[in-house]
Amino acid sequence: MIHDSPVFALHHGGKIETALRRPLRSRADLSLAYTPGVAEVSLAIAADPHLLDVYTGRGNTVAVVSDGTAVLGLGDIGPGAAMPVMEGKAMLFKHFAGIDAVPICLDTTDPDEIVDTVARLAPTFGGINLEDISAPRCFDIEHRLRERLDLPVFHDDQHGTAVVVLAALRNAARVTGRDLPGLRVVVAGAGAAGVAIAGILAGAGLHDVVVCDSRGVLEPGRAGQNPHKEALAGRTNPGRLSGGLDVAMAGADVYIGVSGGRVPEPVVASMAPGAIVFALANPTPEVHPDLAGRYAAVVGTGRSDFPNQINNVLAFPGIFRGALDVRATAITEGMKLAAAGAIADCVVRPTAGEVVPSVFDERVVGAVAAAVAGAARAEGVARV
Amino acid sequence: MIHDSPVFALHHGGKIETALRRPLRSRADLSLAYTPGVAEVSLAIAADPHLLDVYTGRGNTVAVVSDGTAVLGLGDIGPGAAMPVMEGKAMLFKHFAGIDAVPICLDTTDPDEIVDTVARLAPTFGGINLEDISAPRCFDIEHRLRERLDLPVFHDDQHGTAVVVLAALRNAARVTGRDLPGLRVVVAGAGAAGVAIAGILAGAGLHDVVVCDSRGVLEPGRAGQNPHKEALAGRTNPGRLSGGLDVAMAGADVYIGVSGGRVPEPVVASMAPGAIVFALANPTPEVHPDLAGRYAAVVGTGRSDFPNQINNVLAFPGIFRGALDVRATAITEGMKLAAAGAIADCVVRPTAGEVVPSVFDERVVGAVAAAVAGAARAEGVARV
Repeated sequence: MIHDSPVFALHHGGKIETALRRPLRSRADLSLAYTPGVAEVSLAIAADPHLLDVYTGRGNTVAVVSDGTAVLGLGDIGPGAAMPVMEGKAMLFKHFAGIDAVPICLDTTDPDEIVDTVARLAPTFGGINLEDISAPRCFDIEHRLRERLDLPVFHDDQHGTAVVVLAALRNAARVTGRDLPGLRVVVAGAGAAGVAIAGILAGAGLHDVVVCDSRGVLEPGRAGQNPHKEALAGRTNPGRLSGGLDVAMAGADVYIGVSGGRVPEPVVASMAPGAIVFALANPTPEVHPDLAGRYAAVVGTGRSDFPNQINNVLAFPGIFRGALDVRATAITEGMKLAAAGAIADCVVRPTAGEVVPSVFDERVVGAVAAAVAGAARAEGVARV
Repeated sequence: MIHDSPVFALHHGGKIETALRRPLRSRADLSLAYTPGVAEVSLAIAADPHLLDVYTGRGNTVAVVSDGTAVLGLGDIGPGAAMPVMEGKAMLFKHFAGIDAVPICLDTTDPDEIVDTVARLAPTFGGINLEDISAPRCFDIEHRLRERLDLPVFHDDQHGTAVVVLAALRNAARVTGRDLPGLRVVVAGAGAAGVAIAGILAGAGLHDVVVCDSRGVLEPGRAGQNPHKEALAGRTNPGRLSGGLDVAMAGADVYIGVSGGRVPEPVVASMAPGAIVFALANPTPEVHPDLAGRYAAVVGTGRSDFPNQINNVLAFPGIFRGALDVRATAITEGMKLAAAGAIADCVVRPTAGEVVPSVFDERVVGAVAAAVAGAARAEGVARV
């Protein structure tokens, strides 16, 4: 089989490589970078482990870890098939934030084995970016790694999405003349992104969030809910709604789709006047932006060919940059909220067509990094 | 503490980094290298796993794995302190062979955990270079990984050293007018390097090899020998010598020191006329080259400031280059012997002062890679 499209040509031989930061031209170079000189550095680190992040690349290096169970919208296609995506992610880390990132695709889907394996890599990496690991396994894996490691551990499918959604929602509320905490929000999708979005909205002071999965509104005691959904039901849905997405959507201010489902036009039409619709499924949004635009005041998608692209790349490079810059021992809720605020603030005068900055806006990573580093210091997780 | 030597300046921030092999300047670049374009490549790999090594960097990427238990001559200084050495090794891989290498320092010294962890990284790496793992654990770890993975797995402290020693010995035999298989050899040191050297010498047809450890000659049934030494004793020492190093050395043609011990002058003097002495301990050879030169016809060390530097960098870059070029499923004895032959042949007219090529001889890596690839094909472990 011959793959002759531009995509395959670009991927031939891979998209990233290892490069030398120091020359290796002479015996003198070799004796400094390798034996015998390197022994001095090894002994210094053995005597003072903090020097590991000073005299090696570890402090600027993130592992991009996947088990290949939830790759893009493709599902469980395996760790090998996940590799091109993780290489792409590594490119984004380097290009946008100067962070060295290494794809680590694991030949296991067992949460215990994933946690053990990643935890054993801690001497090598200054941070762990979990990626494309299926829900609900991803919640447990991230939680256990956060407990076990004093490093930034961040499942981007959850928190990267949640941070950018919050940033967009802040500006969309401003554009539509609403108060953020008072918004009535429907989150469609109770996977990695949906759970994290509900979490960050609560952290931002929103109290009326309803989460739906393919079977309808999450409510305490609903049949067939896994423990994560049951817990989420208890934290959301303050009006104790029961039924389908249509019940939740009637009169709602905000729809956030991270489900891949479709929303019928009458359901969109039933939202509050001047509604906000973020339909993030890729490549096919849950509501087509043209249709959404007939009823909503602000429309966002995950796509680059429509206005208001809600793209994780606005968040994770700056979040890790800030966390690594202060050698943070974790990525806290406060750091994520700070990141969302910084992203939102990069749009000086938000409009219906611009509630988030462009992914190529070079101010974003620095602004996010500074806000995240500040929050890390304020929350006591910064080491420098 | 301020580390202001040139060594620390050179190590500041680390010696390697991730680099992009493709540009990421526009939305069009992003849509090819990342979503949505990358999904096509992921689906192609999911359908045909062989494409993993074509459309990602995996086929040119080696993990440099250590647990920090036997770092240089420093011993068990831990995985963090091993990091600068593994970064240096990664530099050598890239500089000499164009291979992308990633340090993987593990926060465990348990052989089961090391084997499981490395095996789970197989979707990410096209080869595994084990480094600075203490004996006898290293034998078991390498063996089990070779059994479990259809990848090149190579413990460089064992086989890299052994390959270069054999290359040097071939040319030294020629310089001294001797027949290689007939040499009487003493290997001083029964750790990783000593065991591998005894193994490759047997593979090259030498039948009179005696191995000594700090307690003297290995012989079957000797008290206090671990199972690896006991097995080695059964494969070596055909004359059933018993006693100290002095017993073995009397009349020997070759001394190969990989022990870090010291050899008294009378013991050196007791060797056969025109002897060969390779004293490889670093930075202090077991016999000083000036002293050895009084009795031996050919003298080699591990140091760059004396003639005949026996340096692994002559072997491992070309061995992995050749193995990766043919997508070898293993590194076999035949591939190692071929590598030794190719290194030896890079010295067109060996002399007492030049039995191995310079580490900066640019012909070496290509010659070794070609020989290794050829041997892999001949032995049926090549996939292309």
